[in-house]
Amino acid sequence: MSILLEGAWIITQNENRETLRGDILIEDNQIVQVGEGISSEGIEERIDCSRKIIFPGLVNAHTHCAMGLLRGYGEGLPLKNWLAEKIWPAEAKLKPEDIYWGSLLGMIEMIRSGTTSFSDMYPVGMERMADAAGEIGMRAVLGYGMMDKPEGRNLEGELNRAKEMLGELGKANPRIKGSVSAHSLYMCSEELVKKGKELANENGMLFQMHVSETREEVFTLLSEKKMRPVQYLESLGVLDSLSLFSHMGWVTKKEIEIAGKNGVSVAHCPMSSLKLAVGDIAPISEFMEKGANVCLGTDGPASNNSLNMLESLKMSLLLQSHKYWDPTRFSVANAWDSATLNGAKALGIHSGEISEGKLADLVIVDALAANLKPLPADLRMIAYSINPSNITDMIIDGKFVMKEGKIEFVDEGMVLEKAEDVAHELLNR
Amino acid sequence: MSILLEGAWIITQNENRETLRGDILIEDNQIVQVGEGISSEGIEERIDCSRKIIFPGLVNAHTHCAMGLLRGYGEGLPLKNWLAEKIWPAEAKLKPEDIYWGSLLGMIEMIRSGTTSFSDMYPVGMERMADAAGEIGMRAVLGYGMMDKPEGRNLEGELNRAKEMLGELGKANPRIKGSVSAHSLYMCSEELVKKGKELANENGMLFQMHVSETREEVFTLLSEKKMRPVQYLESLGVLDSLSLFSHMGWVTKKEIEIAGKNGVSVAHCPMSSLKLAVGDIAPISEFMEKGANVCLGTDGPASNNSLNMLESLKMSLLLQSHKYWDPTRFSVANAWDSATLNGAKALGIHSGEISEGKLADLVIVDALAANLKPLPADLRMIAYSINPSNITDMIIDGKFVMKEGKIEFVDEGMVLEKAEDVAHELLNR
Repeated sequence: MSILLEGAWIITQNENRETLRGDILIEDNQIVQVGEGISSEGIEERIDCSRKIIFPGLVNAHTHCAMGLLRGYGEGLPLKNWLAEKIWPAEAKLKPEDIYWGSLLGMIEMIRSGTTSFSDMYPVGMERMADAAGEIGMRAVLGYGMMDKPEGRNLEGELNRAKEMLGELGKANPRIKGSVSAHSLYMCSEELVKKGKELANENGMLFQMHVSETREEVFTLLSEKKMRPVQYLESLGVLDSLSLFSHMGWVTKKEIEIAGKNGVSVAHCPMSSLKLAVGDIAPISEFMEKGANVCLGTDGPASNNSLNMLESLKMSLLLQSHKYWDPTRFSVANAWDSATLNGAKALGIHSGEISEGKLADLVIVDALAANLKPLPADLRMIAYSINPSNITDMIIDGKFVMKEGKIEFVDEGMVLEKAEDVAHELLNR
Repeated sequence: MSILLEGAWIITQNENRETLRGDILIEDNQIVQVGEGISSEGIEERIDCSRKIIFPGLVNAHTHCAMGLLRGYGEGLPLKNWLAEKIWPAEAKLKPEDIYWGSLLGMIEMIRSGTTSFSDMYPVGMERMADAAGEIGMRAVLGYGMMDKPEGRNLEGELNRAKEMLGELGKANPRIKGSVSAHSLYMCSEELVKKGKELANENGMLFQMHVSETREEVFTLLSEKKMRPVQYLESLGVLDSLSLFSHMGWVTKKEIEIAGKNGVSVAHCPMSSLKLAVGDIAPISEFMEKGANVCLGTDGPASNNSLNMLESLKMSLLLQSHKYWDPTRFSVANAWDSATLNGAKALGIHSGEISEGKLADLVIVDALAANLKPLPADLRMIAYSINPSNITDMIIDGKFVMKEGKIEFVDEGMVLEKAEDVAHELLNR
């Protein structure tokens, strides 16, 4: 299948992420040519994009997308109480079939807000999340969220569960990859973290954890181990470019250096950090300067409360300006890379930019909108001014998963209805 | 003209801003009945709202909407340089006709993101902004932005210009009201501030200023007058419930008390404060506790870069949680009031809630959307999860200004084209 997108404003990965006016040729699942006046001979589908902006699909580096089922549930509590009193009791009742519907709901929201790939860790139903991603056409990196500290769980059981899921994923769609996830240092034993990283290494896979999200977590570890989280993780030998740590707000300059030196990936989740009042704004401009691979995530929709990466992108920019009292500290290009190319790199996906040989994961935007005018359609408009109403089409792996506003491969109305039934039934279960 | 909106989820001003499932009857420009099973006998227009959420139109208490013409221009500089090197030189070339097109552009963006009323101060073309609001159907409070410190301007000239505009506005649409605006303490003499407030009082009008936006402004005043801005303004006798001060970030506890005691209105502009890296998050929960009337604004689209009040609403919530490390400090109802009822109160508009006798300024949302599911459609969904793609219709003053996504009273395509021409011509002028 070949598709020619003609005459668009294309957000490139050139210096300053300049806009190019031209065409994109897609063959099968790849971008094979980008430029002006590409010949349309023999092309199966030609699309007039003269009023469109096209950007590479956003990569949501950290979410728990099925938690949309619990969106708005238990609002307004401190993180620990919200988890212990509301979220965990509800999650304990979740069945794989719930995750299937919650995931489809979340994926529709992601598609409508510009995300083509995401990374998810969750303690239940990941095989059904893989099914959902397979059906709707998204790209995903999925990890069973191991934790051996809560009652009823143990190290061997968790590792076996993780392995089992990786086995199941092996049978799934090539767009879906496995990863190994250990929830956090406060929910996992030292042994589970080490064995988890070993399992990831054996499979050449990404290893993921929540790290330094709250002060309590940092100071508990400091009192128990006499080390801060990143130093402790270094001592366990789990710091390398195949490790992705989310949050990383409560870190010292020394920890930033260690993370940078080891080329660790950091998933910044600005909306959830603010909403849960954890108190930090992650120093992502410093992480970037020191060599870490800074990515962007929404976190789960229960602590955001959306899966809208465009909003997280804008806030990642504004919050660095605010944190350092300096609007030049973190550039639009820096933020853009964290939402696209860096996320793709962390997840091991050959996407995140519009150039020849990359996977055809693209977002198409109607530039003829009051909130995107009047200056030329460029990256600043995407970073600061866009909203989901501007997105009309999405291509993932060379296929339209949304076309002229219509979700192509699942029945959207049915998903909304089923997700609503599941959520109501779950909270009364 | 009578309109019956049937079977909607209605965001009410009840305790906790609970949702009511029912109908809204509009006659002429007023809401005349709200409840279940309102009779449709003799109604001219009935609208099935069974899949809709209806909320009162948002009130943008502080903006410079025509600055959309300069959206993205001169990005990434500190506030002072951005103003002095980029914005002011461009603004000096602005003609009233530019403001007309820039305003229409901004108003389309506001309508599409849920705003029915706004307050604007600007140093040029306010009469043409009034024309634009009149034509598109919005409600506006407009003030010529007086300043007598820059070269070429003087006190008498500024006051005369302000009076002249108020005279012009008197002839305009009843939806448009005048106000008196003095830019700031650093751009206006003490005499202009005092005379401006007198002029406002003579006309029973709102008086507006930018106050305590930057540290520099506060400390310059402190060194010159030995008083902080709010104390100084109190000494000038300009603090009362007909004064609206925007930003108010760099304030002391004492100033918060003074503002509260005098019932001053405060327009919080969270996005521009972050983007311009002014360093503060305004302590709006404290202002509210002390009795100030806290409102919400987007500020101009050149320092945001949008006019999306839904985004500012969400961020006002998240930033108070962040500022106080406490997600319970500022409630969803508090934030909601600041975006609706408090803004209406500050602007002297009888709107901001859906109840009998209020002006029919309403936003209609399609609740059947992945980002608003699955729990019941309530205020949390509007505060945290909505985006402009969910808004389908808007009623202002009892008339549909947007219906099923179509802007009714101006040609949207023509406005986008003209605004683009004007912006390009302006920057090459």
